[in-house]
Amino acid sequence: MITPLTSEWKKGQSTGLTPIFVNRTYFKVLNGSFEEELDLGFKIERRTWTAPESFTVPAGARHQLKCVSEMGTIWQSAPNHKMPTPAQFASAAPFSDSNFLHLGQAHSIDQVEDHLQQIHQDSVTVASPYFMNQLFTGVSAQMLLAEEIIARTRTTLATQEASPLLTEIELRIVESLCEKLGWPTGKRDGLGVPGGSAANLMALHCARHRRFPEIKQEGFSGQKLKVFISEEAHYSFQKAAITLGLGMNQLVFVQVNSDGKMNAQDLEQKIKHCIQEGSTPLMIGATAGTTVLGAFDAIDPLADLAAEYNLWLHVDGAWGGPAVFSSKTKHLLKGVERADSFTFDAHKLLGAGLTCSFFLTKHPKILLDANDVSGGDYLFHDADPSLDRGKSSLQCGRRADAVNFWALWRNLGDHGIGDFIDRLISIRQQSLEWVKRQPRLELIAEPEFLNLCVRVLPPSPEMNIKGWSKVVRNQLKEKNLAFVNYSANDQGTFLRLILAHPFLEFRHIQDILLWALQT
Amino acid sequence: MITPLTSEWKKGQSTGLTPIFVNRTYFKVLNGSFEEELDLGFKIERRTWTAPESFTVPAGARHQLKCVSEMGTIWQSAPNHKMPTPAQFASAAPFSDSNFLHLGQAHSIDQVEDHLQQIHQDSVTVASPYFMNQLFTGVSAQMLLAEEIIARTRTTLATQEASPLLTEIELRIVESLCEKLGWPTGKRDGLGVPGGSAANLMALHCARHRRFPEIKQEGFSGQKLKVFISEEAHYSFQKAAITLGLGMNQLVFVQVNSDGKMNAQDLEQKIKHCIQEGSTPLMIGATAGTTVLGAFDAIDPLADLAAEYNLWLHVDGAWGGPAVFSSKTKHLLKGVERADSFTFDAHKLLGAGLTCSFFLTKHPKILLDANDVSGGDYLFHDADPSLDRGKSSLQCGRRADAVNFWALWRNLGDHGIGDFIDRLISIRQQSLEWVKRQPRLELIAEPEFLNLCVRVLPPSPEMNIKGWSKVVRNQLKEKNLAFVNYSANDQGTFLRLILAHPFLEFRHIQDILLWALQT
Repeated sequence: MITPLTSEWKKGQSTGLTPIFVNRTYFKVLNGSFEEELDLGFKIERRTWTAPESFTVPAGARHQLKCVSEMGTIWQSAPNHKMPTPAQFASAAPFSDSNFLHLGQAHSIDQVEDHLQQIHQDSVTVASPYFMNQLFTGVSAQMLLAEEIIARTRTTLATQEASPLLTEIELRIVESLCEKLGWPTGKRDGLGVPGGSAANLMALHCARHRRFPEIKQEGFSGQKLKVFISEEAHYSFQKAAITLGLGMNQLVFVQVNSDGKMNAQDLEQKIKHCIQEGSTPLMIGATAGTTVLGAFDAIDPLADLAAEYNLWLHVDGAWGGPAVFSSKTKHLLKGVERADSFTFDAHKLLGAGLTCSFFLTKHPKILLDANDVSGGDYLFHDADPSLDRGKSSLQCGRRADAVNFWALWRNLGDHGIGDFIDRLISIRQQSLEWVKRQPRLELIAEPEFLNLCVRVLPPSPEMNIKGWSKVVRNQLKEKNLAFVNYSANDQGTFLRLILAHPFLEFRHIQDILLWALQT
Repeated sequence: MITPLTSEWKKGQSTGLTPIFVNRTYFKVLNGSFEEELDLGFKIERRTWTAPESFTVPAGARHQLKCVSEMGTIWQSAPNHKMPTPAQFASAAPFSDSNFLHLGQAHSIDQVEDHLQQIHQDSVTVASPYFMNQLFTGVSAQMLLAEEIIARTRTTLATQEASPLLTEIELRIVESLCEKLGWPTGKRDGLGVPGGSAANLMALHCARHRRFPEIKQEGFSGQKLKVFISEEAHYSFQKAAITLGLGMNQLVFVQVNSDGKMNAQDLEQKIKHCIQEGSTPLMIGATAGTTVLGAFDAIDPLADLAAEYNLWLHVDGAWGGPAVFSSKTKHLLKGVERADSFTFDAHKLLGAGLTCSFFLTKHPKILLDANDVSGGDYLFHDADPSLDRGKSSLQCGRRADAVNFWALWRNLGDHGIGDFIDRLISIRQQSLEWVKRQPRLELIAEPEFLNLCVRVLPPSPEMNIKGWSKVVRNQLKEKNLAFVNYSANDQGTFLRLILAHPFLEFRHIQDILLWALQT
């Protein structure tokens, strides 16, 4: 139930920065003028409202109001600032003894709504800036607005006639991303896919089809097709090799240098070795932003080898792809204009709803060639097959996730996305300087992106150094302080902090590490 | 901006049935008592409200209020009944000359919101009961409520620690669906997948893994693995055969009888022929509800052959799976307890958000065996691998779509889902009787499910009969009257009406066919 509030303000009176977490809030200025700072995480907008104007603040935003007239009166629909505190990070299952999950009996829609709210409350608080266990974090206004429209519109990207406008939006996202990568007009195609893993699978699928188009009809006939990825590459390449029938053993793991980048010399040796043993080098899977260190494989040396040995070059930019928007980070993707395909996730660094991923390729006909089949006559009619995107996809019904990234991009613009990344990079710099001054924190590698990997040394030297960071990590989680991930190298476990939350500030990083030191 | 309304009522005064289309509406009874009929499409709930109670009506519902006290006063947050009329079905692109889609420049969040609303308005009106071009239709309250919570919770089903509760919900959906299929405890597993096509792919993937587990490591070594599907099966089996590296030519199309069901004799002959030629029969892909006629392959004869020749039996119930909930339709799935796996889509007949699909299997370890790989140490830690569902999945980050079906199931209960199907079956019967009385309408087949396939004969016998239904279909669409699909058999094109909309009434079917006759 809405309980509206009317309040009277004096000049200069101001709210703090107020989070609008659960529902959109409506405001109406009854008297006077107000300045508003609308903090959308990824960006801040400033607005001025004078009676009788009204405005809304979407869920997921924060805002600050200040009266700028002698007196002001404002009506607001609800004091809707419920912040999920304490954050729910602990994995103890508070629901285990509740039976509200049981299926079978009917319940009123009001009860179901209560249960849905309960599910939200009892789930991990991704909205918190202290959640950085995954490569995604935060719940933004742009995402919530887009998700609402996607749900309400509820049509499929399979055919143009079912989604003329949404198909156009997806194509424009694809076109604009390819342009960012420096791919020439006429050499751009792509598709929304359900996650970065699906994009990496599509890359290997297209690479296979370009080289062995007969596999589409006949299936494998004993070829051994080799795929070269770094030791730090995402496990989805393994899943793709299994799914596509290449087999996991056809993956060749290339050594990485101390900075986490693929070693091109080792790659060349391994390619040569495969040729000598009679197998067929098919694809290099480079990584732009590894999951642990955030390392970017140097693309140019890999592109040279791809050209020399006729391999498909795929770049997995699921995490690091957005680097292309910032002048401070786009050098990390140098050479990407030479890649054959690219994985771009908008739901990681850019906060879109899960999962808003794109497979991009410089081979404009390959998606249709590799994936189109007969037998869909009931669905696909006379339209241009390149516009019926279902023909190029492995999905039939397909959610319009592209709208999610579209809303953010439209709100921020190219520069705004770049500015957001730059802001995170400054927080990283500030964090690095601070970390280096802490005797019990050990930096695992000088980060080139937004992963901050830090080993926490135990309070006393006789304690187990190797496992300590894991102990710390689990404590932070069980105490509902922070949910960060950990990994390990030869020297033991370490924390992985991910800088991606739209409302992230340096103090969040500092808080987590201070709590870690207190463990 | 909310413009609240307060109104005074007399005893017996009533609204009509009012659709609440765009936003949730809040009500507060200030005086007296009101009876409410809350029509949620899939079900109707009756509620009584007495001052000072307050209540809300979610978007996507309809409701009717009646004053039952001598006098009554009620406050409502907004007269929010904006119905999208006329429906937007025509494929002419009203957006082609607008530049609101362009990416690059920044725009305020208010502008982006306006654009998102515009996208909704200019998209195909799936919410209309006259939309039945796809096997899904309608925008229900249950779905919108669930989608909001999924978006706001925004965590991933990859690991249990990131989604303890959502993982549990998915597992309960899987468990409850398997129980409905009559699969014994301990022989149940399954997973949310991004669409029915992904579920069919997973079926073939698991079938391959059970028979040739070495393909996971080594890849294909020249085997020709045959997959038997009917001529009416969904094209996703072809896509699966391509993706998995079997090749499209390894699909064997089995004849269907005049009722659209797979011919078991032809199947057996084709299995024998494959064995004779030295290839390996691997899987039978049965269909429970074909896309055009809604035919259900008789499962028992196929299960007999699967047992005799050691084939995996998969049943694609993407469209017809929900038949298991109704005593009137569950006979269509007779024998399904003998299947090895099943595809169930909750976003088709049951109105969940796109795409809410489940792959179910009676082989509890096969998903993990077929899909688990090393290399995810940064993500998967010490948990029980069967609870870290990402290990069993081809996706890494995965949306909690299961919540969507959970909300509907919890609201309707087993019986409510059955009742909904029964109601659609009665509308089908009424429609059939009516169709049979129209001389210019020709029934293509006596439906066993919720597809009504009807040929429209042209007004004059010298006109082209074969193409007329297609002309009619396109006219209905261009005039924004209805969006139905068409297909063709030897005698020409015909309309395919799909009975699935939560608010469907007989009059909608009658309207469409009367308009069709007027073309």
